[in-house]
Amino acid sequence: MCHTLDVKLPVDHLDHLVRGSWTPAGAPDADLPAHASRWLSAKTGLTPTSTPAAPDSALAVGESALPATARAALAAIVGAAHVLVDGPDRLGRAGGLSYLDLMRHRGAGELAVPDAVVVPADPEQVRRVVEACAEHGVGLVPFGGGTSVVGGVQALRGDKVAVIVLDLVRLDRLVSIDPISRLAVFQAGVVAPDAERLLAAHGFTLGHFPQSFERATIGGFAATRSSGQASAGYGRFEDMVEGVRVATPRGEWRLGVSPASAAGPDLRQLVVGSEGAFGVITEVTVRVRPVPVVDRYEGFVLDGWAAGADAVRALAQSGTLGTVTRLSDPAETEVGFALKGGWKMAAVRRYLRARGIAEPCLLIIGWEGRTSADLAARRKATLRVLHGTRMVSLGTAAGQAWRHGRFAGPRQRDALMDAGVCVETLETATYWSKLNRLRTEVRDALAAALTAPGRTPVVACHISHSYETGASLYFTVLVPRDLGDPMGQWEAAKKSACEAITADSLGTISHHHATGVDHKPYLPREIGTVGVDVLAAVKRELDPDGVLNPGKLI
Amino acid sequence: MCHTLDVKLPVDHLDHLVRGSWTPAGAPDADLPAHASRWLSAKTGLTPTSTPAAPDSALAVGESALPATARAALAAIVGAAHVLVDGPDRLGRAGGLSYLDLMRHRGAGELAVPDAVVVPADPEQVRRVVEACAEHGVGLVPFGGGTSVVGGVQALRGDKVAVIVLDLVRLDRLVSIDPISRLAVFQAGVVAPDAERLLAAHGFTLGHFPQSFERATIGGFAATRSSGQASAGYGRFEDMVEGVRVATPRGEWRLGVSPASAAGPDLRQLVVGSEGAFGVITEVTVRVRPVPVVDRYEGFVLDGWAAGADAVRALAQSGTLGTVTRLSDPAETEVGFALKGGWKMAAVRRYLRARGIAEPCLLIIGWEGRTSADLAARRKATLRVLHGTRMVSLGTAAGQAWRHGRFAGPRQRDALMDAGVCVETLETATYWSKLNRLRTEVRDALAAALTAPGRTPVVACHISHSYETGASLYFTVLVPRDLGDPMGQWEAAKKSACEAITADSLGTISHHHATGVDHKPYLPREIGTVGVDVLAAVKRELDPDGVLNPGKLI
Repeated sequence: MCHTLDVKLPVDHLDHLVRGSWTPAGAPDADLPAHASRWLSAKTGLTPTSTPAAPDSALAVGESALPATARAALAAIVGAAHVLVDGPDRLGRAGGLSYLDLMRHRGAGELAVPDAVVVPADPEQVRRVVEACAEHGVGLVPFGGGTSVVGGVQALRGDKVAVIVLDLVRLDRLVSIDPISRLAVFQAGVVAPDAERLLAAHGFTLGHFPQSFERATIGGFAATRSSGQASAGYGRFEDMVEGVRVATPRGEWRLGVSPASAAGPDLRQLVVGSEGAFGVITEVTVRVRPVPVVDRYEGFVLDGWAAGADAVRALAQSGTLGTVTRLSDPAETEVGFALKGGWKMAAVRRYLRARGIAEPCLLIIGWEGRTSADLAARRKATLRVLHGTRMVSLGTAAGQAWRHGRFAGPRQRDALMDAGVCVETLETATYWSKLNRLRTEVRDALAAALTAPGRTPVVACHISHSYETGASLYFTVLVPRDLGDPMGQWEAAKKSACEAITADSLGTISHHHATGVDHKPYLPREIGTVGVDVLAAVKRELDPDGVLNPGKLI
Repeated sequence: MCHTLDVKLPVDHLDHLVRGSWTPAGAPDADLPAHASRWLSAKTGLTPTSTPAAPDSALAVGESALPATARAALAAIVGAAHVLVDGPDRLGRAGGLSYLDLMRHRGAGELAVPDAVVVPADPEQVRRVVEACAEHGVGLVPFGGGTSVVGGVQALRGDKVAVIVLDLVRLDRLVSIDPISRLAVFQAGVVAPDAERLLAAHGFTLGHFPQSFERATIGGFAATRSSGQASAGYGRFEDMVEGVRVATPRGEWRLGVSPASAAGPDLRQLVVGSEGAFGVITEVTVRVRPVPVVDRYEGFVLDGWAAGADAVRALAQSGTLGTVTRLSDPAETEVGFALKGGWKMAAVRRYLRARGIAEPCLLIIGWEGRTSADLAARRKATLRVLHGTRMVSLGTAAGQAWRHGRFAGPRQRDALMDAGVCVETLETATYWSKLNRLRTEVRDALAAALTAPGRTPVVACHISHSYETGASLYFTVLVPRDLGDPMGQWEAAKKSACEAITADSLGTISHHHATGVDHKPYLPREIGTVGVDVLAAVKRELDPDGVLNPGKLI
């Protein structure tokens, strides 16, 4: 029933791994457009400066602390050519893509550079590397696309003699596919676009499209409990995971024999979100779906946040969400129009005001399906639920514009950072009855922390993931960088936001970015000290020497 | 946003707790109808005998081993009137409702009788009882409806000085309801019909209807990862759980601040299915839905198991499952017609054969919804997917007949047991590509183990829970009881079935009955020794003295 494949893709991902920016040098959208720069100056007080990422050569990289015996043991497993100790190789896997990580590559703060990069060929080599690290007391940071924005791949040494990055780039195979059961087994290092290409050859899609899509990996999605932009249609990544293969210091661990089970707790859900702290995920069995053949993305403008959130809730609770459903608050709606350009804002506002829209909130709905009739019926059901909501359709042009730019965020951020902007995002989620309060409190906390003489922050927010009982909130912050203390500027704002989220159990500390280093201090408020102790007990059982991803999660 | 309630229901559940049968004495359906008896004799070789449950007074109950100090400590918490040590009270909570447990109440095998029954008033008393048990080294078995069919509530003493049953019957409140977020907080001891009544007053339903519905509790559903007959429409219970409050020897543990989170692993899914081994669930926050106002249940007959399973798979993979979707194999279809009576089987067969149905497989589909138009559209979509499948509609009469008898199984079983039948069920699940093989292997294993001179077993099977990637299989066995070794007869059959399920990771050892005592030996095959060690590590962390539900799960 199950075709076993052995598809090998060219290893071209290593090229990307010059940190400090997502955008390759000379990329067409590497610069901030003039209209965006003008809008930012007027809005935030920004004086655009040129602060591009420094070349790697400008960064100091210390000697590798990896003991010779450990290095020899690792070389014996993966081959000497796959134990990289040169500065650029190590710098290329030093940290992820948070604002703070990127700033560290720009010379601010201290960069945690791994002592080596080890590149195993397959799950079996991963298992042996994990065992060797445990034996030699060497920390090990699993590394997929390296897109963590919460410090999840920082090469922290902890109390170990050295720390290596385990780059899973060579675990790039679609291992097998079962079209009857709609299951695919991927090695952990397969990047999302390759996963989609490999599945498309069989008529399937995974349907997982986070903003990190272009670089992130299947293993990373599982390790971080990722959620993609089409979660309303395809589910969160945890909903797609049917099985996992994990390399732990205790040996290999396989889970997943059926779609559902009552044979004790669901341990798959203990592995999903474990961020490399319990083991290295080497294979993931995912549920796949037929490739959609028709789609329609449409933009609407609703009047005000509260009415917009009510509309999205009505869709979520009536089962009529689109495959993609996203609501921007007035601030984000303005940022979107301003940064994209091509819109005459005054004219747009006049047009909307004439139609009763005082506080424009952009709502993007995308439907994807197998037949036009099905799509039309779903769209009709959506509009029936929204009947009575004051709104203006922007048609498919606005929908397609969002779709076209859906993965452009990281490149846009690079351009903003080059121009001297402190730009970062954070996300949370809560139940519907607390959603408006959560948005207000986090927005106000961020604004208060970032406002300073000559610096007025823009704090924008959207709902991108909705459930019957609640929704996520995703915040984007733009403010002129504090050149005197760029790290402290954001650290203080982030702390304020996290306090607002976790005080009074208002929301989760992360809806889809994971815990990493940044959210770790807030985990006890969310899962209790009992919960943290349970995670620590699992960690002790699986990783008694504490070599797995030191300093993350717990 | 959230109405806080404090609804107190009359405590009438204690009346039921005379074990040995589900059916109260003198209930109208307590006897096996003559036509069923005739059919069984012809089919299985049964010579009907009268073997009713013995009165409790016939069973020996030893002295309570509960030390006086422990008893005093417990009485200080719940009041002396709520520490029950009389024989009948203890017998009433001795074991669950598996065939073996029921046979023990009929004098076969040894009955594990608790040393006391403790009946706390609220979550705080539960917490204190748990702490007292840990302090005094007394085992504690959480007890809701007592409907476990896998030995989950057997009062095993393990290595403890004594064991008590913690009866949660007084934790019967709907604590709060949040209609905006569609959340309800229930105390653990609320029985399902009361939960539905309490929710209905607010226009909501939980939609969880397992066969144990009439007695089972909200806490039990969570502790066992229950799945109800309407899982296609409402999800499994684990999908409904948004939060839990758990009393552990380490103190109280609360989880659940948002519908979804990436703040580490989902620990709610570690509590759901933990079967009282990690703590006592005292409150559950569940997602609720508006009460359906229209419904239609319809019966169809399909031709043969393989075609039927393909049809259900097509429905599951196209998103067109009914709220309830159940497919019986030819054997179960025959059992259904034979036991229910009122059908002239020869005429039915002729009618079906004339329409090309050689091997009748009953398919029940039930749609529940908010509007007739919605229901009609969903029914149309279902029939569109089934277009091309050879089938005959039996109309709504057959659907309503199933619906009417949906909770009658336990009473029917009592009547069969009284007539000398060995009658039991077991269930599993797997991915679609392995489903037919799993059905064949388990069926053959059961048939081989139960066939003996003068005894021909009926092994019937159905799919009652379907997913995109696979489905459950539920087996029912009917065979004349081996009067010489009634326990060994079923134990051998169950062992054969479990071996068939777990050999080669063919399926899960339980889809919705949980692990308990019966499935514990097979857990390592499913989650690995690493998985079992992880569960043990969590147990050690939360319950270092091992007082919680000794001998269950791990």
